[in-house]
This record gives sequence, C-alpha cells and structure tokens, in this order.
Amino acid sequence: MEVEFKALLDDLDVLEKSLSDPAPIHKLRSHVENLATLSKCNPHRRSKVKELSSEVVDSNPYSRLMALQRMGIVDNYERIREFSVAIVGIGGVGSVAAEMLTRCGIGRLLLYDYDTVELANMNRLFFRPDQVGMTKTDAAVQTLAEINPDVVLESFTMNITTVQGFETFTSSLTNKSFCPSKEGGSGVDLVLSCVDNYEARMAVNQACNELRQTWMESGVSEDAVSGHIQLLVPGETACFACAPPLVVASGIDERTLKREGVCAASLPTTMGVVAGLLVQNSLKFLLNFGEVSPYLGYNSLKDFFPTMKMRPNPQCSNVACLQRQKEYIFAKPERDAAAKAKMEADASTAIDEGPLHDDNEWNISVVDDENEKDTTKAASSSDTLPEGLTRELPVADEYEKAIAIASGSGETEEEDDLEDLKKQLEALNAA
Amino acid sequence: MEVEFKALLDDLDVLEKSLSDPAPIHKLRSHVENLATLSKCNPHRRSKVKELSSEVVDSNPYSRLMALQRMGIVDNYERIREFSVAIVGIGGVGSVAAEMLTRCGIGRLLLYDYDTVELANMNRLFFRPDQVGMTKTDAAVQTLAEINPDVVLESFTMNITTVQGFETFTSSLTNKSFCPSKEGGSGVDLVLSCVDNYEARMAVNQACNELRQTWMESGVSEDAVSGHIQLLVPGETACFACAPPLVVASGIDERTLKREGVCAASLPTTMGVVAGLLVQNSLKFLLNFGEVSPYLGYNSLKDFFPTMKMRPNPQCSNVACLQRQKEYIFAKPERDAAAKAKMEADASTAIDEGPLHDDNEWNISVVDDENEKDTTKAASSSDTLPEGLTRELPVADEYEKAIAIASGSGETEEEDDLEDLKKQLEALNAA
Repeated sequence: MEVEFKALLDDLDVLEKSLSDPAPIHKLRSHVENLATLSKCNPHRRSKVKELSSEVVDSNPYSRLMALQRMGIVDNYERIREFSVAIVGIGGVGSVAAEMLTRCGIGRLLLYDYDTVELANMNRLFFRPDQVGMTKTDAAVQTLAEINPDVVLESFTMNITTVQGFETFTSSLTNKSFCPSKEGGSGVDLVLSCVDNYEARMAVNQACNELRQTWMESGVSEDAVSGHIQLLVPGETACFACAPPLVVASGIDERTLKREGVCAASLPTTMGVVAGLLVQNSLKFLLNFGEVSPYLGYNSLKDFFPTMKMRPNPQCSNVACLQRQKEYIFAKPERDAAAKAKMEADASTAIDEGPLHDDNEWNISVVDDENEKDTTKAASSSDTLPEGLTRELPVADEYEKAIAIASGSGETEEEDDLEDLKKQLEALNAA
Repeated sequence: MEVEFKALLDDLDVLEKSLSDPAPIHKLRSHVENLATLSKCNPHRRSKVKELSSEVVDSNPYSRLMALQRMGIVDNYERIREFSVAIVGIGGVGSVAAEMLTRCGIGRLLLYDYDTVELANMNRLFFRPDQVGMTKTDAAVQTLAEINPDVVLESFTMNITTVQGFETFTSSLTNKSFCPSKEGGSGVDLVLSCVDNYEARMAVNQACNELRQTWMESGVSEDAVSGHIQLLVPGETACFACAPPLVVASGIDERTLKREGVCAASLPTTMGVVAGLLVQNSLKFLLNFGEVSPYLGYNSLKDFFPTMKMRPNPQCSNVACLQRQKEYIFAKPERDAAAKAKMEADASTAIDEGPLHDDNEWNISVVDDENEKDTTKAASSSDTLPEGLTRELPVADEYEKAIAIASGSGETEEEDDLEDLKKQLEALNAA
C-alpha cells in the first residue's frame, strides 16, 4: 500500500501546481497522510536472516532455539534449515504443527489441503475469523509467511485421494530442488499426516511406502478427548495397512457416512497437545536427540499416555510395504556391521585417559551421576521429608519396567536370529 | 479507516465540481478507491453471539464444542460462559492457554503481565512480529478480541511481585461484578500461573491461599525439553510453599542471577503441550468431566508423563496455608456427610428398573461393556494377531497398578482416621 499512497500524494502535488487556490489540496493531503499512517498499524514484517545467530538480544528470533545447543540438548540446531517437512491436512492439528515448525525455523514446508476456513473451525488454534472463506492453504501461507519469512512455503490446494491429486502429491515429494544433495527417492525429510479420514491416511501410506519415506501419523478421536501419534518407517515398522482399523467404510464414499446435522466434537487443547507431541517427535527425529516414540497415545480424561511398538505384518495387503519389508530383511547384515563398527568406535573413545592432574590437593573425587542416583534411591530418603509428604514419582526407567510387568511380557528380543529371518523371507515370498 | 476514505472521496467530489477539467480528479478517485479496497483485506470480525448453538453449520463457531454434550463428555457445555479465569504471565505458556480458553468461549479472562513482545519471543506460539514493542497484555487483547468477541477480556499491565502490583492483583481477583452470585471471597473460578520465576509463583501462592482460591501452576525447564502442571487447592493439597524448590535465590533479586549473554532455551512444542495439558485440566475442573490431575509432568526426551499427589505440609512456612489446612480438617465431618449422602443418592438411582419391554421377539440381550472387556482380555487374544505383531498396550488401570508396584507403595489411604486428624491439628496449633 505504501507505493499506492506515494503515487496518490505525487498526483496531488501535480494538481496543486495547476490550481490557483491550494487550500482544498492541503485538506486532501492531510487526509491521505492520515490514512497512510493508519495503514501502517500493521507494517512490521521482519526481514530475512542469513545465518542463525545464538546472540542473546531481544531482536534475535533464534536466540532461544540456538540455546538448545549451549544446553547440550541438540548438537547442531542450525541443521534445521536444511530440512523439508510435508504436512498433509491443515486442520486443527496440521495448522498448529505448521506454525510450530515455522517458528522453529524449519527450512521448507509443503502444505496440502483442499478445504476452506469456516467459522466452525474457530474452536481450534491458528485460523482467524478474518480468514473465513479463504482456502486453508492460502490462509496458512499468509499467517506463516508473516511469522517467519525465512521458511520456504509451498502450498498445494488439492485432495490427495483423487487420481490427479495423488500424482501431484507424489511428484511434489520427489522434487529435490531445495536440497539437491539429498539421498534416496524423496525430496523431503519427513511427512506428517494430519488428516481426519481413513482414505487420506491410506493415500499417504501408499505414497510413503512407494518412496521409502519415513512419516508420522496423527489423529484425534471424534469425542475430542483423546489422540495419538505414530512413527512409520517403511519396511521397519508396521505401515498403516499392516494393522488397519477394525471398522472402515467399504465400497462407499466415507464422507457420505457422516449423518446430516451431526458433527464430531473438537477441542483446541487436545489438538494442541497432539500437534505439540507430533512436532516434538519430529524435531527429535530430524535433529537426532532424545528418543522418538514409535507410538504415543493421549487419553485426556485420565492424563494417560500409552506407548507401544508395532512391527510390520508379513501378510500386509500393501504390495509396496511387502517390498520394503524384504529390503529391510536383506539389509540386516549391513545394519549389523554398522552397529558393530559404531559400538567399537564408542568403546575406543571411552578408554580411561587417567586423571588430568597428578596432584589432588583438595581431595576432590569424581562421583558418577548414575551411581549417585542409585545411592539416593537406596537411602531411606522418605525420612527426610516433612510429615504429610510422600514421594510418589517413579523415574522413567522404573516406569518402563513397570509397564513391562503390567503387560505381562518382558522386552521383546530386538535382534532376530537367522531362523526367524528365513521364515519371514519365506512368508514374504509366498505372499 | 472506512470513515476516513469516505471523507476523502467526498472532498474529491467537492473539488471536482469547482474544476473545469475533471480528469485529474478521476485519476485521484481511482487511486483512493483502490486503497480503500486494499485496506479491507482484513475486515472480517465476527459479531457476538447471544447463545451457544449446537446447530451443525459452517458459520457456527461453537458447533464443535457443543458436540461435546451430544458425545456425552460434558453435561452442560454452555456453563463455560459463566466462568472467569485469571492467567498470570502471558508468555509462551500463558498466551497459548489464553487463546485456547478464548476459542473455547470462556466467559471472562483476566490477563497479567508487565513485559513487552520481542522478536526473541517468536520461537513460541501466539505473538506476531508486527506486535513487537507492544505490551504482551495489549497484544494479547488485540489478538483474542479478534478471535472471539464474546469473551470479556480484562488486562493488567503490571508486576504482581511489587507491593502495589500485589494489591491490584488480589483486589482484581475479588471483583465479583461479572458473576455477583458467586460464593466465597474470590470473583474468579480458577487462577492459572504461567510465570517463569519463583518470586511470582510465591506471590500467586500467597494471594490464592488468602482468598481460598484454587489455582494451577505450570512450568517449563530451562533446557526447554520438560515441563509440568500442578493443581493447588488451599488447605487440601500442598501449596507452593509446602514443598519449595531445593535451590532458590535468597536475599538478592532473582533476575540479577541471570548471567549476561546467557538465556534459557525454549520450544513452541514443549510450551504448546504444557499449555494444552493445563487448559485441558482447567476444562475438566470447570465443566466437571474426567479426572483432574493433581500433578502431571512432561519429559519430552522420553515422552514420559509422571504423576503424583502432594498433601499439605503441617510445617509450611506460609501462615495462610496453615489456616486453610485447619479449616480443611475442621470441615471433615461435613465432607463425610456430603459424600455419604451422594453415595446413597447414587445407590437409589441405580436400582434396577427391570426391562423396558416384556416381549423379546428378536432375543436381544444386553451385554455389559465392562464384562465384555474382561472377556476379551481373558481370552488368549494374541493368537488372532498376524505374525510379527504383538500387543504392548496396557490399559489405563493396569498402568496405574504398575506405577504403584514400581514405586513400591500401594495407594495411600485417602481417609485419615481420628487419631491422625488429632495429630495434624496439634502440629498445626504448635506451628
């Protein structure tokens, strides 16, 4: 608008010179100047930054993220700018996931949705009433570009479950122009499925199985009070078709199943939590810190968070999944060799280098953190608590042990023996 | 701006009549009309609604929330409009909590913060770069009013830890003009603490202990990868001073402890999850559904969510807390009588009313959900799973049992016997 105001003021100047009485022009000019000021109420759009700085100043949008490096959580936070993430479904979960990744400074976001923003969406985060009527992709790009101009945004306003849409979807995933050095068939690092129906999940599943693309699935229940996220690595974990839902629409369009005048409930809380867990696990996956959850549920009525692992189904109905399973089994010797090499490398760096100083004037001795924790646990520490207070907080490791006891099974053996592998291969070849 | 554009166009009309050649005016008018159109890009602000409708149409901003009633999750969702919630600290957690409550249609929000928006806040949700330089309270009111004009917003730009600020804080909490029929000393239903320092938490604790005000505390760790929420009911649960942190600033201003050039890390994910858990538990508390967690931690590296209960400390340093503890103990007979009456009422409504129809042409028999679940569990159901899939998902009740085993203690007895109560009273009187 600045350009338009300038042109208007220039025209007024020209007009003023041609008039004998400049008074009406002065009045017009003050009007226009007033309007120009008003229009600037929303002017601040920060300029792009070339490199992520860890400088602690109020004007640095990345200082609190780069601090993750200083805190020892992430080795190299700046790598985030190299990653591409595709988000399918820009609704209550997908839009918040997109905003989180944008604020984290992700390199490139690909957004897919065919729907438009409605007032009925206002009970979830992200979209604003002034965006009603816009496509969700357009509205998302508008908001995200304003929040962080450093992120490359690509939006696709289309339905990935149509033949044409599915083709556009897979070809957009294989585009490698953003990071030409990327290995493998796909140009993105992670696909997040944030859709609300079975058909669309199966389409994402098909594309990712074909492209050997790791993806994460998310979902929220119809009654709005529970949700889940799940990691899917083709060939290595169960795919979405390996363990399909028990009841799905068969032969008819899923959308016609929705009864007239009836809609699913939704809450900004449940969707915000699911989006947060989804993007947190995406960050752990991309930046290589913490442990990525294979499956994490959220039951909000009881604040219960179930976890589980699902291995691929050798009788899976998805042909591309069976192909990935075969490849995964064939690559076992390679994985074993790599794991062995890593273990040996770790062991060689862990060799005791002896004390740094020979003298020890102050008799300082180093206590191992792990051992100290055990000692604290072993001591009857509840004695030191004031009356009326009890410790009821188990540590993470005890929790995992407890779950193993509760479910009546120890940890399943990770490494399959040769006999098992043979059986699996035979089953796959027979399928 | 619409008024200003109209005035400008009127002036142009007047000027046109006084000129022999109208061409320059035509050019000016098209400029102005173009600008007026551009300025309308952001016009949509939905009108207020009188009553929450459950009608399933795209234009109803409450349809997905009212669906919670139809789904049997909430008895009366509309009650949300009667509630007042105070949020102290409008940062990474508080701002998102405010947005969630606003989108849920909460009656009234009181917002407290003294800080201004900086670019360095952009790695968390809610604030936009164009709001840099505004106070967080002003920026929040701007955004929230646009999202949902039905919510009554009151903002307090001040520090609650100063003498003056603390007085304004407590007097704002006691204002009952929004809901004059509200019982007790406070005019709000819940206080959410979303601050980032010990001093401010102690100020919220003091005010809530004095006003018998239930509140929830929240926090995120300096390394950005864990957080927690906690419910505090004066006299009934531990207050914030009952079990203070092990290390706090003593005698000096906490803020001076921050080292130059060093800042805490933060992530939109962790803060979004903590805000989501906080508001979800607030909704459960206000609308009376599910179970409100007394304490819920979030360890994002392992996706571990510890829970615990903390009873009040009879040696608490906070005088108001000790007073509330006394009141709570004295009110025990009343609570017991109420619990007994409720139990009897429930029992009388649970009397079997017999079958609705005498005939049963189709031999339909009702199977109890609970029993059916047990049967499924008892059956050797793992046989029916395809090879390669195992069940590793314990149900919520098994999880709780497991935690009890892991922590080496059964559930602590909820009801104190008379001897215990006497001891507690003596301890309180001695303090």
